[in-house]
Amino acid sequence: MAASAAAAYPPGRNIVIVGGVAGGMSCATRLRRLDETAHITVLEKGPYPSFANCGIPYALSGIISDESKLHVQTVPKLNSWFNLDVKVNHEVLSIDRAAKKIKYLSPATKEEEELPYDKLVLAQGADAFVPPIEGVGAKHVFKLTTIPDLQDIQAYIAERHVKKAAVIGAGFIGIEAAENLDLLGLDVTLYEFAPHVFPLIDGDLANVLHEEMKKNKMNLAMGAQVYKITPPDPEKGTHGMVYAKNAPDTEADLVIVAVGVRARTGLAKESGLEVGKTGMVVNDQMQTSDPDIYAVGDMVETEHVVTGARSQLALAGPANRQGRMAADHMCGKEVRYRGNVGTSVCKVFKQTAGLVGFSTRSLEKMGVPFEYVTVHPPDHAGYYPGSAPMTMKVAFSPADGKLLGAQLVGTRNVDKRIDVLATAMRAGMTIEDLEHLELAYSPPYGSAKDPVNMAGFAGGNLLRGDVEILHAADFAPAGREQLEDYFVVDVRSAEEFGRGHVKGALNLPIATLRETLDQVPKDKKVLVYCWVGYRGYLGYRVFKQLGYEVRNLDGGFKAVSEGGYEALVE
Amino acid sequence: MAASAAAAYPPGRNIVIVGGVAGGMSCATRLRRLDETAHITVLEKGPYPSFANCGIPYALSGIISDESKLHVQTVPKLNSWFNLDVKVNHEVLSIDRAAKKIKYLSPATKEEEELPYDKLVLAQGADAFVPPIEGVGAKHVFKLTTIPDLQDIQAYIAERHVKKAAVIGAGFIGIEAAENLDLLGLDVTLYEFAPHVFPLIDGDLANVLHEEMKKNKMNLAMGAQVYKITPPDPEKGTHGMVYAKNAPDTEADLVIVAVGVRARTGLAKESGLEVGKTGMVVNDQMQTSDPDIYAVGDMVETEHVVTGARSQLALAGPANRQGRMAADHMCGKEVRYRGNVGTSVCKVFKQTAGLVGFSTRSLEKMGVPFEYVTVHPPDHAGYYPGSAPMTMKVAFSPADGKLLGAQLVGTRNVDKRIDVLATAMRAGMTIEDLEHLELAYSPPYGSAKDPVNMAGFAGGNLLRGDVEILHAADFAPAGREQLEDYFVVDVRSAEEFGRGHVKGALNLPIATLRETLDQVPKDKKVLVYCWVGYRGYLGYRVFKQLGYEVRNLDGGFKAVSEGGYEALVE
Repeated sequence: MAASAAAAYPPGRNIVIVGGVAGGMSCATRLRRLDETAHITVLEKGPYPSFANCGIPYALSGIISDESKLHVQTVPKLNSWFNLDVKVNHEVLSIDRAAKKIKYLSPATKEEEELPYDKLVLAQGADAFVPPIEGVGAKHVFKLTTIPDLQDIQAYIAERHVKKAAVIGAGFIGIEAAENLDLLGLDVTLYEFAPHVFPLIDGDLANVLHEEMKKNKMNLAMGAQVYKITPPDPEKGTHGMVYAKNAPDTEADLVIVAVGVRARTGLAKESGLEVGKTGMVVNDQMQTSDPDIYAVGDMVETEHVVTGARSQLALAGPANRQGRMAADHMCGKEVRYRGNVGTSVCKVFKQTAGLVGFSTRSLEKMGVPFEYVTVHPPDHAGYYPGSAPMTMKVAFSPADGKLLGAQLVGTRNVDKRIDVLATAMRAGMTIEDLEHLELAYSPPYGSAKDPVNMAGFAGGNLLRGDVEILHAADFAPAGREQLEDYFVVDVRSAEEFGRGHVKGALNLPIATLRETLDQVPKDKKVLVYCWVGYRGYLGYRVFKQLGYEVRNLDGGFKAVSEGGYEALVE
Repeated sequence: MAASAAAAYPPGRNIVIVGGVAGGMSCATRLRRLDETAHITVLEKGPYPSFANCGIPYALSGIISDESKLHVQTVPKLNSWFNLDVKVNHEVLSIDRAAKKIKYLSPATKEEEELPYDKLVLAQGADAFVPPIEGVGAKHVFKLTTIPDLQDIQAYIAERHVKKAAVIGAGFIGIEAAENLDLLGLDVTLYEFAPHVFPLIDGDLANVLHEEMKKNKMNLAMGAQVYKITPPDPEKGTHGMVYAKNAPDTEADLVIVAVGVRARTGLAKESGLEVGKTGMVVNDQMQTSDPDIYAVGDMVETEHVVTGARSQLALAGPANRQGRMAADHMCGKEVRYRGNVGTSVCKVFKQTAGLVGFSTRSLEKMGVPFEYVTVHPPDHAGYYPGSAPMTMKVAFSPADGKLLGAQLVGTRNVDKRIDVLATAMRAGMTIEDLEHLELAYSPPYGSAKDPVNMAGFAGGNLLRGDVEILHAADFAPAGREQLEDYFVVDVRSAEEFGRGHVKGALNLPIATLRETLDQVPKDKKVLVYCWVGYRGYLGYRVFKQLGYEVRNLDGGFKAVSEGGYEALVE
């Protein structure tokens, strides 16, 4: 019988969804919950309608012990629970928008068949991009985005007893693939064209990840352009090779290519739908240029909350929400996709790295004015066992303090702070708002001043003019400052100073700073620093109030040493 | 030389701070950073100026292995780094507001001495409340709020070889004290006047904590009023006893009383400053009724963001912020304390429980209209090892969806979700806003639909009318509903049904629900449920669209069984 909601749409509609997984299946199941009468058909190109593609790299090493765990839903369950018609191994060939029907290849008959739609949803995802490298088509070169890819790689490793592998591309999938091959016991070389892994974050934070990877015996070839791959020859007993500009020739009998993805817009383009630079153009209701055709997930362009720019994004969370939203809109509900803040997280052995919004490098490239602070707070009260420091760089608008980006790396509970910052950024908070967040404190979990509060205090001080800072990056070879122009004061203890310090620094410990200030000339700019920035800030306040021109070194000597700024150290 | 900020206040002011620790010391150190010229004196009644009182219970068991770790700052360090004059063991006796000076007892001379002030800051904290129980003054009865308390208890346990202990009061400190005595190997009985531990949260969530405590061999005496304590007699070889209404008489040779705290407002009252029901009255700049006297920390009343009501709050985070803010205001900065959302977290062996805002019980008592949803999502993707479910109850305004309270309990990464919800509540978000949060997802850390998103989806559905629900509590003895009025349908599998189900329920598994619906009479209200609520919701949508009057059981059978609603189970 007709339900109350039926007023908004005619009963018995034909709804066709092209592609399963996050976007497509969220849409299909939500649709059924809203409309018991619709005929809902899902056509999935691959053999599995709903799988956890984010888990695939972890199945390589056996962390996820059983591939079957990656199957979120099976066809029989989807069909029985949700009364869907899910067809796997069905590729859609064309859309006839005028007649409102699609054509697909029937795997049974090998014939082209037709299916009419009242509403069509494209959830085709994105393809792994395969760069034009000589030899990339060889049999020992794989991508790693689907369960069949995983099965192929596992079979290949088992058959060939592969011991040496290369991964090309150090984004999320590349990093995860490399780590899991390493955990499997393979000798792994990770190639990246950018100067560092996880290119979305800044190089100084990525440096922490490099150290972690090296500790785990991974070989890194950063800033390297692979131009040729040759296969192993079991008969001759020779290894496969990877050749790259800027990196030594490396033996690799298995190669995984993970240099990024491209939205699958071919079908849409052929159908005359509007396609942007990086993916499908959709409105905030997920409709394409044809209002009866929706597009969701990795194949669409959505707005970034920070910049307002639209681009493709390959993340499961947004895909799920978009699928759900398309279903809601089809059923007469008011919806508005709110854009993305670009929250991402990546495990690198014992380190966790994450990003919300943009790195300072990205902000610079986009020409967005920003300032940022670097803090190294412990994940929970230092006096409770197991506490570990993290590194947090938070960027904000110098005009109004609005959050623009946060990057984090550390071994414990980093994901918690990413999520707090993602929530804060979504709420449009400023760096000063972070001071006021009331976060859960009990010694096993946090500190009375949580890491996020600490970033707020440091950034708030900067925004209000209570401190002026310079960054290690400012003194890097391409930086805007020269170390020689400053009288550098290290306010740590003599013992800390002895373990390494900034070139040319004078050691005036904070405990006796007020009595030793006469050693600092008044006619020179002062750069003060400590280990993480706090004592440097105390020193800054003393110098400043006594009339010196002074800057505190953001993030202290730790930011210099863990960031890889060797040229500044002696 | 005068700094730029000096324009806002005269140099060389006398600033006196009464009380150290979080509020007092944050104020003193911030003041120094802003005003190098001020004479800053801190008078601390106890022997330690800055210690981590939140860590004290954990030192009982040895989790925090060394008491010295609890000393955040020492007197020499405070005096040298910050040029303070910190006086420990100095009790302030009176305030002469007209003459702007205080009188204190000098521990050296035992004489009363005077100290003038331009600005005075009261940071006296709160006293452990000792209820009028017969025998509560005996030597084996302790409180546990200061380091001397800890030392006394440790010495007593060592000397007397104590094996049996009682803790009276099951708030944070009582729970932590009981757990740490238990971990030390003592036989512990925990008494609470309220019906359950952590009385700030609802009973069904507290029930999970009860189970955890029982698993760790703790004895629980809930809803029990202790009326008499007798001491052990080593000569006669008799144990001490605790007598309570509603609980068996119990042997206890050590008793810790932790029934709450009372703001230390005696000095303020005698000085004619305005004192509220629970603590000092202050404005948003932390000024008392005398604008030259500030008060911060556990002794003041501040506003709750959700209700606007003012009350005392004993938490370190707010105390730190308030101290800092008082310093800022004294130095001419614009500040405004933004009130509290009441974020709290408590470890109970392997469980973590937390609260932001109010429990449903508290909202009910206050007469605030609310609705709530209960979800049981896994802390991270179920297919990645180590995933564990949590229980989350989120309350919101039925009028506009505004968040009113969130309660959580679980074994993994519960604190992360508390902090996300605390940030959301601080931002004034609604239950629907939680759907749109873009939280970090990678299998080791979360899910494409994070637990917080799940609460948003469930609550958003309720707010928009996509589902109607009833709670297990509605069917409890004092509830508003009768199970007999409903035709109860369990949509789980036959196997799950066989392991226990709601009284009188008919098992119609979701996979075949559409074909078996004819077994459900159309003239009776239907209550549908599953294990956690999702399949129940799918069932609800089927029934609803076919014209049934139907409700989904919020949180499913899990909420019934873990919440302790035994009367509903068969």
